[in-house]
Amino acid sequence: MKPADRRRRLSEDGIIRILKERFSARSPLVETGIGDDAAVLRTLSARKRWVVTTDMLLEHVDFRQHWTTPAQLGRKALAANLSDLAAMGAVPLFYTVALALPRPVDPAWIDGFFRGLTSLGRRFETDLIGGDLSCSRSGISIAITALGTTAAGRAVRRSGGNAGDLLYVTGSLGRSAAGLKLLRSGILQGRSRAERDALRAHRTPEPRCEVGAWLGCSGLVNCMMDLSDGLSMDLPRLCDASGTGGEVYAASLPQFPESRAWRCNPLELAFHGGEDFELLFAVRPAKASLLEERYPSRFPPISRIGTLTAAAGVRWRSAPGAVARPLATRGYDHFRR
Amino acid sequence: MKPADRRRRLSEDGIIRILKERFSARSPLVETGIGDDAAVLRTLSARKRWVVTTDMLLEHVDFRQHWTTPAQLGRKALAANLSDLAAMGAVPLFYTVALALPRPVDPAWIDGFFRGLTSLGRRFETDLIGGDLSCSRSGISIAITALGTTAAGRAVRRSGGNAGDLLYVTGSLGRSAAGLKLLRSGILQGRSRAERDALRAHRTPEPRCEVGAWLGCSGLVNCMMDLSDGLSMDLPRLCDASGTGGEVYAASLPQFPESRAWRCNPLELAFHGGEDFELLFAVRPAKASLLEERYPSRFPPISRIGTLTAAAGVRWRSAPGAVARPLATRGYDHFRR
Repeated sequence: MKPADRRRRLSEDGIIRILKERFSARSPLVETGIGDDAAVLRTLSARKRWVVTTDMLLEHVDFRQHWTTPAQLGRKALAANLSDLAAMGAVPLFYTVALALPRPVDPAWIDGFFRGLTSLGRRFETDLIGGDLSCSRSGISIAITALGTTAAGRAVRRSGGNAGDLLYVTGSLGRSAAGLKLLRSGILQGRSRAERDALRAHRTPEPRCEVGAWLGCSGLVNCMMDLSDGLSMDLPRLCDASGTGGEVYAASLPQFPESRAWRCNPLELAFHGGEDFELLFAVRPAKASLLEERYPSRFPPISRIGTLTAAAGVRWRSAPGAVARPLATRGYDHFRR
Repeated sequence: MKPADRRRRLSEDGIIRILKERFSARSPLVETGIGDDAAVLRTLSARKRWVVTTDMLLEHVDFRQHWTTPAQLGRKALAANLSDLAAMGAVPLFYTVALALPRPVDPAWIDGFFRGLTSLGRRFETDLIGGDLSCSRSGISIAITALGTTAAGRAVRRSGGNAGDLLYVTGSLGRSAAGLKLLRSGILQGRSRAERDALRAHRTPEPRCEVGAWLGCSGLVNCMMDLSDGLSMDLPRLCDASGTGGEVYAASLPQFPESRAWRCNPLELAFHGGEDFELLFAVRPAKASLLEERYPSRFPPISRIGTLTAAAGVRWRSAPGAVARPLATRGYDHFRR
């Protein structure tokens, strides 16, 4: 159970903590249960683990139909789950889909949705194995469960970080939120390359499956999660799980400066924008140069954005050495602002 | 993907068939994909299979809040999934829960829901491993994915039946529908033992986990499914999957005659009542007496209710040899009648 990603307004982190305390798995087969990006399960093989994650998307809460095609929606719903597996360092294998649709049901809509979903799945050799189809009284509801695998001891949890570890992210931050800003102002078709980039990032985000699996296999990463709710909401979760604080440097954040053209503040979006589905991970300083050296050039670039700290709390500075300020937790919420 | 269990009004069997044709898994790891009670996956062990099922429950469609406590609802949501695993002959191990709740969220409700859910899980040594928590704009929505295991070659599919096989069901049929009838007429507390039985069957159905696993292990069963939508809707699915027709004998159906007290027709409910979560399975005639002999007496009784036939279509007779009539497909729909 993820701590209410994308929906902190429920103030669910607390509820999840209670659920975790009260209802956590007791089986020795469960290596990691409630509270991470995915669960890690022992199998009968001593060398492999199953990794399982579930994510729900609701119309009017997580998406609006006139902003997306059915194919884009299917693709994005699966991408969110594959991103959770990537965040554990797992390779995706299978997924199920529970889909509730208001009547009258349009077969073309269903076909488009599953085309988008399965085309992304096939790119990562990940198979639709079943699910449930239902009618709903109001709005579309999508729940996907994805299964993947890692080698034993190679699943990367949120909890493995130590003070002093260097923080990295893949790709860039704030692009998806910039795309959402366009949609909210009625721009459904990009008129420039930057606008098209931003809309694409929001509608069809790219899960970092290969990067996550590589980082997991590398053994160089202490902790990892995916950025679904924005850095200012997700980094505190990584820090809480690892028992550390954290510090990020604004000047080091891989922003999306093109969004200034439509009056976004790229730094704000990098801090608080959701649904980038980039990976956030921490590396021991002694291993950082090895990681950077070995990190394949065909992958999206990684940026060193800060450190985990012994002092609790999450702060930001404009650059290392500058004044530290608390980082307000203000993750992106689609329908609140 | 199950063929729209409990929701045939979508006329989804056809849609599922198309999805199955167009989007089915191609991986050699998938032994059984879309279209059965659960998917069957090869693992790295040659001797074991993973079995995975997903089920969604929606408020106003599948349940009403004032008919059930949160604990009963949690229990029933998991029971429906465990029943699907039982129908494959699988032993349940883990499950995830995606839960969307309208605001304001009541922590006591969440606590009750998870208490009901996990108490049933613990009875079957099945662990909550994670999920997703969200707020919804309208009504509660619950999606559970359950994972279980079988020995290789022991998963029981819907498709293994042959003409001439004898049809059996566990327990009795129509009890849950009789309970629903009570709820619909405003009777929320049973005033007699029969009423309490019926309400319990509807609110806290008992998944046939041990029976299903035993039948799977026995190797005596050709095909199996669970009865979630009523015999008249589910038997045609078993027959379609097996490429046979079917025939049932009214006099042999294990009915719930006590429901006459509240003006139900027990035979009608046995044919068309949903959510009994009993197992329906077929056995080669030469193995039937062995099965009946070995079937453990501690389990709920089984009844021989009919046969699979070479002729297509599903018929019923009052007893073997009597006139055959087509069995109208009219599974129980909570909100239509």
